[in-house]
This record gives sequence, C-alpha cells and structure tokens, in this order.
Amino acid sequence: MQPTSATLKIGELAAGQALTLPIYTFKPSDNASKGPKVYIQANVHGAEVQGNAVIFQLMKQLERCEILGEITLVPLANPLGINQKSGEFTLGRFDPITGANWNREYLNHDIDIACWFKAHAKLNDNELLQAFRSTLVEACQQRLHHPWGITTGHRLAVNLQAMAHEADIVLDLHTGPKSCKHLYCPEYALDDAKYFSIPYTLVIPNSFGGAMDEAAFCPWWQLSDVAKSQGRDLEVAISAFTLELGSQERISLEDALIDAQGILAYLSHRGVIRDAVLPAKMARFGCYLKDYKKFHAPSAGLVEYMAAVGEPLPSGEPLVKLLRLDLYGTADELKTLTLPQDCVPILHFASASVHQGTELYKVMTNVFKLT
Amino acid sequence: MQPTSATLKIGELAAGQALTLPIYTFKPSDNASKGPKVYIQANVHGAEVQGNAVIFQLMKQLERCEILGEITLVPLANPLGINQKSGEFTLGRFDPITGANWNREYLNHDIDIACWFKAHAKLNDNELLQAFRSTLVEACQQRLHHPWGITTGHRLAVNLQAMAHEADIVLDLHTGPKSCKHLYCPEYALDDAKYFSIPYTLVIPNSFGGAMDEAAFCPWWQLSDVAKSQGRDLEVAISAFTLELGSQERISLEDALIDAQGILAYLSHRGVIRDAVLPAKMARFGCYLKDYKKFHAPSAGLVEYMAAVGEPLPSGEPLVKLLRLDLYGTADELKTLTLPQDCVPILHFASASVHQGTELYKVMTNVFKLT
Amino acid sequence: MQPTSATLKIGELAAGQALTLPIYTFKPSDNASKGPKVYIQANVHGAEVQGNAVIFQLMKQLERCEILGEITLVPLANPLGINQKSGEFTLGRFDPITGANWNREYLNHDIDIACWFKAHAKLNDNELLQAFRSTLVEACQQRLHHPWGITTGHRLAVNLQAMAHEADIVLDLHTGPKSCKHLYCPEYALDDAKYFSIPYTLVIPNSFGGAMDEAAFCPWWQLSDVAKSQGRDLEVAISAFTLELGSQERISLEDALIDAQGILAYLSHRGVIRDAVLPAKMARFGCYLKDYKKFHAPSAGLVEYMAAVGEPLPSGEPLVKLLRLDLYGTADELKTLTLPQDCVPILHFASASVHQGTELYKVMTNVFKLT
Amino acid sequence: MQPTSATLKIGELAAGQALTLPIYTFKPSDNASKGPKVYIQANVHGAEVQGNAVIFQLMKQLERCEILGEITLVPLANPLGINQKSGEFTLGRFDPITGANWNREYLNHDIDIACWFKAHAKLNDNELLQAFRSTLVEACQQRLHHPWGITTGHRLAVNLQAMAHEADIVLDLHTGPKSCKHLYCPEYALDDAKYFSIPYTLVIPNSFGGAMDEAAFCPWWQLSDVAKSQGRDLEVAISAFTLELGSQERISLEDALIDAQGILAYLSHRGVIRDAVLPAKMARFGCYLKDYKKFHAPSAGLVEYMAAVGEPLPSGEPLVKLLRLDLYGTADELKTLTLPQDCVPILHFASASVHQGTELYKVMTNVFKLT
Repeated sequence: MQPTSATLKIGELAAGQALTLPIYTFKPSDNASKGPKVYIQANVHGAEVQGNAVIFQLMKQLERCEILGEITLVPLANPLGINQKSGEFTLGRFDPITGANWNREYLNHDIDIACWFKAHAKLNDNELLQAFRSTLVEACQQRLHHPWGITTGHRLAVNLQAMAHEADIVLDLHTGPKSCKHLYCPEYALDDAKYFSIPYTLVIPNSFGGAMDEAAFCPWWQLSDVAKSQGRDLEVAISAFTLELGSQERISLEDALIDAQGILAYLSHRGVIRDAVLPAKMARFGCYLKDYKKFHAPSAGLVEYMAAVGEPLPSGEPLVKLLRLDLYGTADELKTLTLPQDCVPILHFASASVHQGTELYKVMTNVFKLT
Repeated sequence: MQPTSATLKIGELAAGQALTLPIYTFKPSDNASKGPKVYIQANVHGAEVQGNAVIFQLMKQLERCEILGEITLVPLANPLGINQKSGEFTLGRFDPITGANWNREYLNHDIDIACWFKAHAKLNDNELLQAFRSTLVEACQQRLHHPWGITTGHRLAVNLQAMAHEADIVLDLHTGPKSCKHLYCPEYALDDAKYFSIPYTLVIPNSFGGAMDEAAFCPWWQLSDVAKSQGRDLEVAISAFTLELGSQERISLEDALIDAQGILAYLSHRGVIRDAVLPAKMARFGCYLKDYKKFHAPSAGLVEYMAAVGEPLPSGEPLVKLLRLDLYGTADELKTLTLPQDCVPILHFASASVHQGTELYKVMTNVFKLT
Repeated sequence: MQPTSATLKIGELAAGQALTLPIYTFKPSDNASKGPKVYIQANVHGAEVQGNAVIFQLMKQLERCEILGEITLVPLANPLGINQKSGEFTLGRFDPITGANWNREYLNHDIDIACWFKAHAKLNDNELLQAFRSTLVEACQQRLHHPWGITTGHRLAVNLQAMAHEADIVLDLHTGPKSCKHLYCPEYALDDAKYFSIPYTLVIPNSFGGAMDEAAFCPWWQLSDVAKSQGRDLEVAISAFTLELGSQERISLEDALIDAQGILAYLSHRGVIRDAVLPAKMARFGCYLKDYKKFHAPSAGLVEYMAAVGEPLPSGEPLVKLLRLDLYGTADELKTLTLPQDCVPILHFASASVHQGTELYKVMTNVFKLT
Repeated sequence: MQPTSATLKIGELAAGQALTLPIYTFKPSDNASKGPKVYIQANVHGAEVQGNAVIFQLMKQLERCEILGEITLVPLANPLGINQKSGEFTLGRFDPITGANWNREYLNHDIDIACWFKAHAKLNDNELLQAFRSTLVEACQQRLHHPWGITTGHRLAVNLQAMAHEADIVLDLHTGPKSCKHLYCPEYALDDAKYFSIPYTLVIPNSFGGAMDEAAFCPWWQLSDVAKSQGRDLEVAISAFTLELGSQERISLEDALIDAQGILAYLSHRGVIRDAVLPAKMARFGCYLKDYKKFHAPSAGLVEYMAAVGEPLPSGEPLVKLLRLDLYGTADELKTLTLPQDCVPILHFASASVHQGTELYKVMTNVFKLT
C-alpha cells in the first residue's frame, strides 16, 4: 500500500518562499497493531543525498509489506541546506549565515530528570513512557513558540525532533565526505548493529552534542540510569541510530536497495513489519568513540589519498601523499604520511588540496569484531 | 619609541603560502619596570577591521608614552578570515570549510583546578601565579604539538592564546555587524569598564564558551574561587575584555583615536604607562548577560531597521518594518514589529532581507547605570 | 484600484521547491485607453532590495491614479539570488554555481535586422512595431523551449525579458554597492532623464552587454538605425532604463517614496497615467559611459573611504586612505590615494578590506549639466 | 638537470600577504640550441589540481632529458583560486568577489592586425615573428601598468599571458568537473593532437572567448590569415592547447605520469627535447566545437549519473536518473533521461542534486576518428 503524504512548513526564505518538508507515513493496516513507531529522516546535511535514495527504495519495499507499526519518513529534510550551492557542490553542512552545523541544532532538554522521575515514580512502565514522551514533545513545541523567536536552524531541527520524539525507533540517514558505510550506535543498543548492512559501527556514550540520534536517545538513557539508581529496572525505551551511507554528492539506486534491505531487516527484527527479512551476512566491526581518531594535515599541499576507506591499514603503510609543487627540488616536494598504529580509515576529506590542519582522515583504532 | 616587530607563522594555505601574523611589542624603557603585561589583538573575525585602526592609533600614542609594562599588539590576527571574500563582503566569521566560529576555537583547559591548587598550595601568591601561568602556556604548547595534528582554526586560536596567557591584561578587539560600541566584561572586573570609551557593558559570568576573553580569564577566576573555598583570598590575577568597536566592514581613523584614548586611559589606570590619561566623561551602562536578548525574525521578508543602535527603545516602539512584496494587497504586506519591554538595541543584522529565524537585533534589557 | 496579482514559475530548486515571481498588473480602467505599456522589475541582483520598496510605494500611488496604459510590476525578480546568503550578506550578484552575473544573462537576439527590415519594409510604422515585437517575444519563447535546456540564470532572464518585450517602457530597478542614485540612460532617450528623482545619468551607447535595459532597447535602436539607413525615419519605439537607487542591503520606505514619485513623473509625462505629476526640482548631471571610470586598489589593505558618493571631488583630494598594519613603522603604513582629475564618485566597494586590484570606486569624469 | 626556480608576485591579499607563483625553467644545456620555447601552466581553476601532478612528473622526466628549447613551468598558477575553500571543496572557478571566471580574464589584444601587417610587411618571416611577439608582450606590460589599476583576476591572467607570449608552445593544464581526458585544439594544429595521451579532441575555431589558449594563438592565427589575404604564406607560429586531464579535486601521480609522457612525446616531436619519445598507441577522436553540446536539467532533483564519461552512448540510452522524493507516488518520482542522438559524454556536473537548468552533461556529437 502507498504511504499517505503530507507537507510541513518549517521556515520561510527571504523572498517569501515557504520551506517545506515532504512527509510520508505508512500506517498499520490493522488499527489494533501496536508495533513500534518508526521515524526516518534523510539529507539534513545538504550534500548527503543518498539517504533519500534509500528512503525511496525502502518505501517501494514497504508498499509490499504488512505494516505493524507506524512508519514516518522525511526525505529532503533540510531544504535550505540542499538548495545552497557554492560552485559545483552543495554547501549543506552548516547554515551559510551563522556557520552552525545543521546536525548540532537539536534541543538539549533542560529537564531535571531525577526530579521528574521522583514526581512520576508511581506510574507503571508504560504510563511512565507516555508521560516522559509527552514532556519531551511539549518542550519542543514550547521552544518552537518562543516569544523572541528561534534561529532558522533550530526551528528546522526542533520541528524534526518533535516528530522523532513520537517514535520508538529513530534513524537519521547521513553520509560522510568520501566514506565507507558506518553506523553511530549507542552502547546500550549494540546488539542491533548486526541487522543493518553496515560493516563498521561506532559505539557512542550517553553524551549530548547536538545531533539527532543523541537528541532522541539521551533523555531516555538518562531516565533509565536514574531509574536504576532508584532500584527500578527500566530499559532505554528508544533506539536511535545515525547511518552513514557512503559518500556525499552521490546517488546510487542499486546501492540504496542494499541499505533499504538492511533497514528492513532491523524493522522486521523489531516487529515493525510482519514480513521476515534476514540481515545480510557480512563481517561487522565495532570501535569505541574514544578510539575514533582524526588525522589533520601536518602541512598544506596537494593530497593523493592512498588509503582506501573501509580497508584495514597497518601501521606505517601510506595514508596520503602530500605534494608541494612550490617546494620542488627540496626534500619536502613529496611526502608520504603514515600513522603510528593499525587502523581502519573510515572517511577522508573531499578536496585534493588542503590547508595545514585540515582533517584528512577519520580512522577507527582498536577495532573489534561484532558477534 | 617605535615598537619592535616580528612575525609568527600560524598556518599554511593549500598552495603553500605561509599564514603569518604581525606582532608589535613595546618594551619598558627601564628594564626594572614591573608594570603589568598587556596583550591586544584585533580582527579575529575577518570583517571586523576597525580594531586594526584602533591598534594603529594606539601605537602612535604609545610611541610618545613612557612604557612601564610590556605591551604586545597583534593586528590582522586572522589572515585566513580577513582574506576570505564572498561577493563584496568578507566571510570572516567562521572557517569556510567547517563553519567553526573563529572566536570559539580557544583551548578549554582540561585542568582539575582543585587538585592543582592543592598540589601548589604552599606557594606564595606570586609564585602561585607564575606556576599557574606556566601550566596554561604549556598546555597550549602541548596542544599545538598534538601528534595527530589540530584544526586550522584551533592552531590559530591556541597560538594567540599562548601569547595572551603571558599577559596580565588581555584585550580582544571586535565589532558587531551593525552595532554601537559595547564591552564584554567579567563580573569581577566591572569597575574597569569606566575607563574605556564605551557606553554599554555586558557583565559576563565565569563560563567558558570558547572565546578569547573567557579563555584568558576563566581558569584564573576558577583558581580564585577554589582558593576562596579553601579559605585563601586570591584575587583574579588576569583582566580580559572583548571590546566591540562599532560596525564591521568599516574603517574610521578618527573614531579609532577615541577608542585608542579609552584603552590608554585603562592602561594608565593599571600602571602600564606612566602618563596620566583620564577616561572620557560619558554615561556608561551595564546589563547582565542573562538580560541580553536576541530577537529573531518571526517571518521572512525585507527589513527596514527602525531602531537606532545605542539608543533606548521604549516597549512598543517600532523595532523593524517587515515588507513582503509577495503579499502585497494583504494584511501582511507591511508589518511593524515591536518588543514587549524597554530595551537598548545594541546591534542588528547586516542584511536587509532575512529568512524566518534570522537574528534581527540583540538588545539589552534591565539596563543599569554604571558608577 | 488594487492591481491584479499572479505568479510565474521560473525555476525549480534541487529539493523540489518552485521558484516563482509575484507579478502585479494595473490595467487601464477604460479598456479603450491606449497609453504606453510599462514593465518594471526589481531585485534581479539579490542584495539590491530597495527597488522593491520603490515598487511598493509606486503601487500605493498607482492605486489612486487613473491608469491609461497597462503597468506590470515584478518585485523580488530573482528569488534564487535573494535567498542566497553567505555570512550576513546576500550573495546575489552572480549565480553561485557558475559565477554568471544575473544581469548579463539576457538573450542577445540573433536577428539579421537589415534582412528583417527588408522583408517587412512594406508595413506601416505601427504594423512594423507589432511585427518586430512579436519576433522578439517569439525568440524568447523559443529559447525557453530549447530541446537541450538552458541554464538556470538564462531561464530566469529570458522569462523576464519576454515580459519586458511586451512593454513600451522598461524600468529595471537596481542599486550600487555603496552608491548615490544614478541612471543608465540610452543616448536617444536622454531627454527623459529629467523626470526621475536621480541626480546623475550615465549616457550609454547602442551596445549589448547582456543587461536588461540593453536587451530591451538594443534591437529597437538597431531597427531604427537600419530604417534610417534605408531613408525611413523610425523613432526608437522602446524606452528602457536602469535606475540605481542608492546602496544595496538597505530598505528605506521614505526614500522609496521619493523615487516612486520620480517614476510617476515620468509615467505622467509619457501618458501612462492621466494624473499630472511634476518631476522633482533638482540639479541633474550627465556623463558618457566612456568617461565613467573604475579605480582599482593599487595595493591591498584596509580602506577608509574618504570621498562621499554623489559629491564632486577635485583632482588631488583624498579618495581613500589605505592602512597597512603589517607595514607599521614603514612609509607604507598609511597612504592617501587621490585621482589625477576632477570627478564625481558614484559608488564604492562595500567592504573595508581589499585585495590588490579590487574595484574601489567608480567615478564620473567630464560631468556635464543636463538641461 | 634540475630546473632553476623563481617566484613572481602577482597580487596581494587584504591582510597583506603576497600572492606569488613558483616558476621553474629548464634551459638548453647548449646555449646555441634554438629549439622552440615552451610555456606550461596548471591550476588556474583552483579545484583542477591534477595538472600540478603532471608538471611534477614532467619535471622529473625532463631532469633526465637533453633540453633543446627553454621550458617554463608554472604550477599552482592561481593561488587565490586554489586557497578559496567553500565547505569541503575548492571554490576555484571564478573570482569569489566578482564571479569572473579565472580563465576568461586574459587580454583581448586590441590590435588592428591588417594595419600592423602592412606596417611590418617588409620584414622577413623571422623578423616579423619577433616584432609581433614584442607587440603582444608589450601590450600585456602596458595593461599591467594601467594608471587606474586593473582587477585582481586580470592582473593574474595578464602576468601569465606575458610569459606565455614569449613561448612557441603553450600548454594550459585543466580538468573537468567529473570528466574524461580531452584536448582543446585549434583547427590549424589538429595534426598535433595525436601526440598527447588524450582520447578526445575538441577542434576549436579562431575566436577569442577569454581563455589562455585562445589568448596565445588567436593573434597569430589572425596574423596568418591577414598575411594569406595579402598573398604571403605565413604559418601560424604559435601552438596552444588546453589539456583537460580528468576530474577536479583529484591527485593521481600514476595517472599524471601517463600525461607527462604524452606531453614529452609532443615536445620530442617538436624538437624541444632531443630524446625520442613516442606517443601512446591509442584510439583518438575529434569533434568540432559546434557539435559539443550541453544538456541542462529539464527539472530539478537528485541525479544518478548513468552514462560513463569517455564511453559512446547510443541515442535513447540512459543518461541520468532524476529522482524526486517530493513527488513520490506520482509519475515524476523517478525519470530516466536520454538524448535524441548518439554521443560521447565527456564530462558531467559534480553534485548529485541540481536546480532546474544546471548543466548536467557535456557531450560530443558527430565524433570522428583522428588519424
């Protein structure tokens, strides 16, 4: 069955055009179904378009599935970022006016959770969950109606967040610059990583840095921790992941189908669809966030990226060649840079010429196998 | 006497050019002089050029003064930001690659100050000050030599910060977009605000947000608090201020002389120069940071800025007119926006057309007279 | 009477949003009226917003006038340019993807006019005019339907041009960067310059450089020349002007009323409205385009713009001061630049720091009084 | 033997930094050698870096060759363009202030060649060549010293052009966005195309559009034409080519060696080096510029580029897939676009999301085999 569609206005451009989001919803055919609710968005960073193709392929699949839990999909989730070109590329990573990263604009809930828990301790688990969810959604609504207004990016983010808080499963589809596929996964949900068609998983702690996945799970994780400290065992109710689906500025419908299939496998596992979809058989690896390292250009120059993303790189093997035509004839005309420890390069910078200090590669170290 | 001059390399551009800073130093004529050390920088945000003119006029004055404490001046402190044009304006507020605000890149010292204080509690005040200063400078140097490198902006900022940590007085010269003059002043140093030729002062708390002034004073303020909690009365040793000297993209040598005179008055008061320079006679006002409010465009449109910066605006008086040519003939074609409380508009946005959510004005509320 | 309103779609953004133009039309109350048709547009350069305010004020006036000729007004004529921010300013002068100046994208009609004239020589003047107009409009339509597509900017421009070709009077409302008011006026229409509230007029020849005014009048001027060469006296049928209404990034409704009044005076003179509106009494001056000169920064530095726009500047008087903080203590620390001949500065660059070669000022030389 | 090196200052940035070019020169070991002079530059468009790698590999080869004619190499020829980042990419195609394409800024010589030829007709061929060369170089020098200054981009371009006019062979190394290798070759020099390691050649006419290759050969081609019209057979003395060496934002030293080898083969053929270097054996194809077509996005959307560059695409075969997530569930959700005639796609746009009108592909039609 086709999803229902709607549009949400999340802003206005200077010349008066409305900024709108397309929203697609698959409802359970059987109203009595109580499967988990799902929220999936893509393209919050303007150049990271492949998530849209994944949503396309996923919707094509879902049309043929038996739906048990409501699924909301928001492709093209940042129209301002998508439409902001600068030269032949999309300048979609930050607000062109303020520099604010579009994926660091989500609301940091200012709730004293210990206090809140004490006030609601008498509720049963399900009531507690409903009450807390209401608190979060309401805080978003309140922020959206701040009497002095809020920024363009915050308005977008909090609108998305209000939708995400209604769901039990939140997937935020991104890509890296030049990148292999990897998953940001909160530590408590590490078992879920094996359903997606993604080889590398970053295991992240309970710390809010402004991103959607953290906005979705942090309050719940804190609530669970507070409950535990009070002797009550309360699972983290919400699962939230950021999926990094390869490189930016790239659409591949064929590859999108693979990732749609991985998401379906997870939704099947979680009982969102009745259809049995098995995860892809593939090796999957993990790395703790503290072991995810950035390598910055020690000097400026032209860069040949030697290390392939997604492939283990032993210590001492070539990472990049750094070419300095202005220093031809000196010892610095061409340098091969290496790393002092084994790693898996996950992504590298998109441009082939860099200032000193540019983040050249992000690599996983102390990689372990997920089972 | 003319200052000595030097250059510091703080980066390299992709094509190989060195990014360098000019550094001017006035040394006490008498080597025995022990006046406070001063560090002054300008133009960390690329479009905020007037601080350079103030440094120019200040140096012309200092050449005729008797210097008691070493004064280091760094104009043009962000060459990458200054040189980054986008259309006819300078895109100098954030790193064009990452969006990182150039004035939020300073090092957040990761020192357990209670622990440090305990370890150094036996030192006398002066020794304590020297030891703590060394700790801060060394932390900067260590960061600059991080084996995996650091970002372009962090490298610039920490280089500047290492110089600033050597000083007792730190002045960071900025401007607003379209702005009246105002001063960011830490609460403990509020008495100093009356020396500068600046009518409006923001009183800021002890909280690090990444800016130079905070980077300079926060560790010392914390040290002072810790000492107090241990029963030792230790003044905050460092004074650090951000001076906002009017509007960006504007050079006025005449106006620069007024602000140079204000800085001289402060340096005279602090014993950095022997010459007696009195502060300008003018009304000065204060406002706590919590009362400094941002007003965001409730809808998009063309903006006529009605409220003059630096002049009190009673509640209900016109702040902006918002023109919507696409809505001509409707009730929304022209709206006058007002604020619900008395304020002093301090700065407004630089462009005359805005998206919904753009920060239109920053205003001080609950303004009080400084005495 | 209120104008009728419509919208025209002239493009689509990457995320799917339609780019539309608001179009307002005042029709003659008496259908038999045969006053000249007028086309007025504003804001083709994104930062040049004041023309919208002028259209607003003009429409308010027209609502009270007796209309004799159809008047079409297109404010916000370049939504993509208006909405393209870069930092706190509007990057609206050129296509951010290609660099193409939005006002150099109009269609250069590829008509052999001598040949066309020969083929239509038997028509009377009015028929000739209709036939030629049809030829121009049709060429625009054909271009818009090019089987391989056309660029974003060309699509916008040719859509506007097709509307303009339907009119007898074409006004394109622009501003300079930091500028006094001035008018681009084709030589054959110099008598018309005295109706607008604009002190300085550039007299331009019959040469197509891609701008709207030239696109509107060049073919007709050529036709007139060809006719003359064939012994037939055919006036240039179309009047087209570019009005530069002060500085960009500025809305002033009060000042807009002055320019609306000037336009009304011209429309009154031309019989577009029955109401008698007299032009403002003011001195008006002219300058041939060949005498309109650009002065480029001979070296880089910080700029204090000394010469006021719109005020005569005698040879040798200060134009700018160029400040070089990196050269403090040398002869080049501060230079005053002058021009070797008398002039009237018309506009200057918007930023206060410049690379070598930046166009600092445009000045009129050999200025003469219009009578 | 290593080349000699020098630097040329071609501009100054706002904060005072000099913009300089590295220049490397190989001189004939035997001073009596009279081989043709060569000028090679790379990276005039900031993102098109691969030409630098080719110059690197070429210089490594030349160090081992016997040089007969002077060879001047200018890598990193546009420091301002190379250093101008916008997000993760290099915004290097046009001046960020004015939008002017860096490769359309060369001087259009304003010489009446018929008149010049008449004045110099008595000279023998070699004298004529020297005299004309002097005229061109002098015109560049005069332009560089224009009393009112010249633009930043024109200063860069004319400095480069003055060097190029000294040479008999001019190679300008560029790349496309996502592109296969192709050569811009003036019609009179088509026989030379078979020496480079480049499969596709665009045959261009004698028409100046502002680019370096045209700047180098157009005056000479005109001179030859004028001479012919006067009954004197004068070969076009200068050979100038633009080599498009694959995609921008990419460095590959291995691939660079292939193109260095192709250039060497041409230099060997022309007697610039004594060493015999044979051209690569490969199929080479040509296309007249009039048959080189641009295909623009008929509507906006996300783009999967289906057609591989450099591979023949039969009429009707998929060129791109255009995905519209906002139109999911309609006939327009996914469209496959094709072309109505056989072609070879040469390059495509770099981003995967496009506004309506974006140039998606450039394709050669009516391709013929070069022999």
